[in-house]
Amino acid sequence: MIVMKTDATEEDIQRVVSIVEESGLRASVIRGEYQTVIGPVGDERRLDFDRLATLSGVKEAARVEAPYKLISREYARFFGEPGAHRTVIIGDVRLGNGEPVIIAGPCAVESRHQIMRIAEEVKQAGAHILRGGVFKPRSSVHAFQGMGARGTANAEEALTWLKEAGTAFDMPVVTEVRGESMVDLVARHVDIMHIGARNMYDQDLLADVARKGKPVLLKRHFGASIEELLAFSEYVAAEGNKDLILCERGIVPVGKGKNYTRYTLDLSAVPVIHSETYLPVIVDPSHGTGRRELVFDMSCASIAAGADGLMIETHYDPAEALVDGPQMVTPDELKEIIEACSTLYTLRKKTRGAAA
Amino acid sequence: MIVMKTDATEEDIQRVVSIVEESGLRASVIRGEYQTVIGPVGDERRLDFDRLATLSGVKEAARVEAPYKLISREYARFFGEPGAHRTVIIGDVRLGNGEPVIIAGPCAVESRHQIMRIAEEVKQAGAHILRGGVFKPRSSVHAFQGMGARGTANAEEALTWLKEAGTAFDMPVVTEVRGESMVDLVARHVDIMHIGARNMYDQDLLADVARKGKPVLLKRHFGASIEELLAFSEYVAAEGNKDLILCERGIVPVGKGKNYTRYTLDLSAVPVIHSETYLPVIVDPSHGTGRRELVFDMSCASIAAGADGLMIETHYDPAEALVDGPQMVTPDELKEIIEACSTLYTLRKKTRGAAA
Amino acid sequence: MIVMKTDATEEDIQRVVSIVEESGLRASVIRGEYQTVIGPVGDERRLDFDRLATLSGVKEAARVEAPYKLISREYARFFGEPGAHRTVIIGDVRLGNGEPVIIAGPCAVESRHQIMRIAEEVKQAGAHILRGGVFKPRSSVHAFQGMGARGTANAEEALTWLKEAGTAFDMPVVTEVRGESMVDLVARHVDIMHIGARNMYDQDLLADVARKGKPVLLKRHFGASIEELLAFSEYVAAEGNKDLILCERGIVPVGKGKNYTRYTLDLSAVPVIHSETYLPVIVDPSHGTGRRELVFDMSCASIAAGADGLMIETHYDPAEALVDGPQMVTPDELKEIIEACSTLYTLRKKTRGAAA
Amino acid sequence: MIVMKTDATEEDIQRVVSIVEESGLRASVIRGEYQTVIGPVGDERRLDFDRLATLSGVKEAARVEAPYKLISREYARFFGEPGAHRTVIIGDVRLGNGEPVIIAGPCAVESRHQIMRIAEEVKQAGAHILRGGVFKPRSSVHAFQGMGARGTANAEEALTWLKEAGTAFDMPVVTEVRGESMVDLVARHVDIMHIGARNMYDQDLLADVARKGKPVLLKRHFGASIEELLAFSEYVAAEGNKDLILCERGIVPVGKGKNYTRYTLDLSAVPVIHSETYLPVIVDPSHGTGRRELVFDMSCASIAAGADGLMIETHYDPAEALVDGPQMVTPDELKEIIEACSTLYTLRKKTRGAAA
Repeated sequence: MIVMKTDATEEDIQRVVSIVEESGLRASVIRGEYQTVIGPVGDERRLDFDRLATLSGVKEAARVEAPYKLISREYARFFGEPGAHRTVIIGDVRLGNGEPVIIAGPCAVESRHQIMRIAEEVKQAGAHILRGGVFKPRSSVHAFQGMGARGTANAEEALTWLKEAGTAFDMPVVTEVRGESMVDLVARHVDIMHIGARNMYDQDLLADVARKGKPVLLKRHFGASIEELLAFSEYVAAEGNKDLILCERGIVPVGKGKNYTRYTLDLSAVPVIHSETYLPVIVDPSHGTGRRELVFDMSCASIAAGADGLMIETHYDPAEALVDGPQMVTPDELKEIIEACSTLYTLRKKTRGAAA
Repeated sequence: MIVMKTDATEEDIQRVVSIVEESGLRASVIRGEYQTVIGPVGDERRLDFDRLATLSGVKEAARVEAPYKLISREYARFFGEPGAHRTVIIGDVRLGNGEPVIIAGPCAVESRHQIMRIAEEVKQAGAHILRGGVFKPRSSVHAFQGMGARGTANAEEALTWLKEAGTAFDMPVVTEVRGESMVDLVARHVDIMHIGARNMYDQDLLADVARKGKPVLLKRHFGASIEELLAFSEYVAAEGNKDLILCERGIVPVGKGKNYTRYTLDLSAVPVIHSETYLPVIVDPSHGTGRRELVFDMSCASIAAGADGLMIETHYDPAEALVDGPQMVTPDELKEIIEACSTLYTLRKKTRGAAA
Repeated sequence: MIVMKTDATEEDIQRVVSIVEESGLRASVIRGEYQTVIGPVGDERRLDFDRLATLSGVKEAARVEAPYKLISREYARFFGEPGAHRTVIIGDVRLGNGEPVIIAGPCAVESRHQIMRIAEEVKQAGAHILRGGVFKPRSSVHAFQGMGARGTANAEEALTWLKEAGTAFDMPVVTEVRGESMVDLVARHVDIMHIGARNMYDQDLLADVARKGKPVLLKRHFGASIEELLAFSEYVAAEGNKDLILCERGIVPVGKGKNYTRYTLDLSAVPVIHSETYLPVIVDPSHGTGRRELVFDMSCASIAAGADGLMIETHYDPAEALVDGPQMVTPDELKEIIEACSTLYTLRKKTRGAAA
Repeated sequence: MIVMKTDATEEDIQRVVSIVEESGLRASVIRGEYQTVIGPVGDERRLDFDRLATLSGVKEAARVEAPYKLISREYARFFGEPGAHRTVIIGDVRLGNGEPVIIAGPCAVESRHQIMRIAEEVKQAGAHILRGGVFKPRSSVHAFQGMGARGTANAEEALTWLKEAGTAFDMPVVTEVRGESMVDLVARHVDIMHIGARNMYDQDLLADVARKGKPVLLKRHFGASIEELLAFSEYVAAEGNKDLILCERGIVPVGKGKNYTRYTLDLSAVPVIHSETYLPVIVDPSHGTGRRELVFDMSCASIAAGADGLMIETHYDPAEALVDGPQMVTPDELKEIIEACSTLYTLRKKTRGAAA
């Protein structure tokens, strides 16, 4: 990390950038109001920080050992904003640092009718963003793969329906992109690009998605530590895309025998990520529990822990859904959840203010 | 499980008990207002349920496959109380099915002065029950083992101080009992007997403690599934002791690298245990996170998830504590947590009422 | 799974294929010497097996519930080869069902000189296949990413060196392909396409690689159960590619504190995969332990457990390597390992024959 | 750790012991042929090592940070025996540093006839030590608890049968002790006291068992890291008992879905424990896999990894056993395993000699 003096010239900045690039790294230049910071991306052992520190216009130059830097609270400190909490803007929706944002919709887009009807109902329930899976990652090649399954011509059609439904009911839309070959197609139709838990470790996909310049929703892998999630988030930030929303969706359950949930939600991830980075964090209690009757309680718990939003699978008839029926709530249930969470948020803001 | 008819005679009941006992099992007889249920304890494969079902006074006789029965919601259903939620009564404190109960105090009792001062301060902050460790389970034989370390004469003295402090400030007291040899001693001095996470699998200790007839606080092992916790709880219930409080205190973190917490709190354990059993559940955010600055958020999240109480390590000077300093809050912080949780509970009661 | 009668006509077979495809599934047709089996790929709930069973030429038609079928021992049983153990042929090397095959080479290709020298030395030590990473998956965007790092022009050059070295010393070569965009490039230069542990869940990559028709080496993700590994292997087999080699390379260590290894090798995966499928299994003790001094013992243990081969990172000067130095052995050490494993294999063949 | 000079007087030694004890720690004095080492047991922060180093007769005084010391290879180094590998002597059997020792017998003692017959058959098969459970730790209070179940009078009788069978066929015997109240009883009847995986964290039981002075067999908990196993082993060594045998018996399986084994054997534990301590390590492939058909392969793999012995559950009629039938082998199968392992050991000794 190289921090420039407030009176550093453009020439000074370019000199540092050149040295970084000559060493085979890329340079991420972030220009603050008063100050510019240059974050080298790549193997920092190749850089001579002692020499960099002596250059004209350089205030400070130091190697940061953590596997993530550009998204770190430490980085924010360089800008004199140690308490920063980023707001990602998606159309009219502001996610982070304010009212909890609710992303709702079916697990998978199944028909034009289905997504239009669900969009209408979740909007009425109070949702802000519409979700719907087109490319479903599945554990078995023998399971339903979503309308965007390879070899079928339906992917684009399903994406069109999703966007149409979002537009009709005035909500930005989000869908999962599962492989590099789908990045362009998905980017043309959605407002947020979602990278699922199974793909969290796919660094090339992360970089390709990041380059589209749209907000990125990255889910934590169910076997990943928080440090790993942050290290892979850095692959997005390293492309210059900081419109990054992190999502806790459950880790692999512990022990022998049953835990009565599909995964185990790690809600401490919410305050921990807030203390390590300035990024917004949301929770997915649908995948996190796999059980519709637990979604209300875990939604409330998430907001109480400080989550910036929720992603909740919703369907007017969960029993009929092709995927994930047991974990979807109805629009009526969604409404109750949203109302409870809104009250909780107001309360938390008041008490947390006192406690902080 | 054998359910007797409402008009079954005492003789009918005794006949069933005899058959169960002749088969080498024990019989747990639970007499409801209208109905008696007999729960065999032991290897049910030895019982001929078809024959039992034909006996005079028997309404239903069936083998239950789950490793726990006596604590199960299914069992409550037999009594016509499918929605039962048990209240454990400890002196004037009612834990379960009402306002969240706060257990607070130091990790370890260190001196008479220390425990008296902390008792006074946590009482003022709003705590209901006083905790203080005398026998500390430690990962290393080279670490401080608590005042009740083997070979020292201080155990009883420390227990006396704890009880004295509780009496002085009108709070029941709880301490951990780590081995069978301490059961009698601890039972003489405390109001709740606490079995720690490391001892959850110690079935003989569970049975010995249960037999003392005092309320039992059982913590989930950090490597145990919820089913295992419930199966071992059954060892307490099988001794006829149903004043059982279960405690979630964190599971082993997942993945490579850091999670920035000592353990990972599994808050879905709260609604799950409530749906599987009629027992109260509390959460220990101090051990669950290992970080003082996360205790507020995770306490709120616990109550929002439906927890019946919290166990929070508190010390007037965390930095000076011999054990677990980094995770203890001050009495002032405790007060803020209790106030936030109380408001949250009221809110939850209102919204959950609507949603349920 | 639909098993045709021995006297089924081509017309009979095509009728079944049509019905499967009309239902929106693909049909994998496997023609044995005496018998043809048709494996539907996709959501089998859409097929009416009762009706299929009544068609002319059909002997048996049944839904298989497991997430993998085409690679299963059960499938082999349909062909009357319940004890099948597949041999994957790569040039002159036969992997599976015979002498253990040793894959050796550096973690990463660093220069032409480096890979030529290592190729020569591992060949002399007794290795059969040459490995060398060009695209390195890394946990941190700030770590060395291999010569094939995106944005650099070196990928093809490094692949050429690798192939050149393999040709010079008469060994097929293997390298990891990390994303869909690299599939074509890698397929042009290597003999085995390797999908790393982090990408095991990347179903699109698996399918793309499988379609190249070259042998595929698939590593188990460090957080995946064996069932998951097999379910994702099915994505390769579903493309008609059964030249599939599975690799155990260690799972995430358990518990609090140190395990003194980078991962935990699960050697029971070897006999388990052999009993569930007919595919060959190899072990990677280098990544599995992360410690050079454990490679000898764990190599021997792997062969004793029945492994069909080993992948061992080797470098003439481990201390100088840019990646994974602490886990690489020298060519001299490799020689000792190969000799010990060869003797062990002979012994195992003798004793296992007696025991089986 | 305080290392005395070779010419230190008895007075010098006693002065150090006094200072250690005055600080509230115990002093473990180990007198080598040339040199005496004093290991403080307890919270070393209370000791002033700088002052200790200046005392007459003291060569070196340093705090050791690891949670285990007395069993560590570092400790052995102080005695000038860096490569030490302890042999535990049980009657005529020498375990450690030689031929693999086989412990065999039924999961549970069920009758006098059963244990006598099994003893005879495992002896003929080549076993060295007889095992048989009397007190069975069970996950469910409703499962068969062994003949020593609380409240039954059979415990002592079953122990007598076990010892009788051992004597009749000239084998030392081992049984599990599950709680502190059984320590005296078990110590009267057996040659090795076994502490099961579930009780590994029970420090009081460890200390009580250690004090009996008999060899102790300690199993690793299925959720414990190797460091934890070693830290709890230290509780035994701290009582002056170094006749300690460690046992790997499987950790909790990873991931979603099936692993096809009951636990996951961590065979790297064998070379790792050998490099961290001088203690012998055995493996229990019966509990480690839970599947009879995997016992042969995993036994061979264990010996190839350097294990000093095996514990294998054996029964003449596994299908009839009250506990753990699916994982027990027959005496004939045991014979094949022992023969294969013996040959493997000879081979390993030869090749390892070359490689070391």
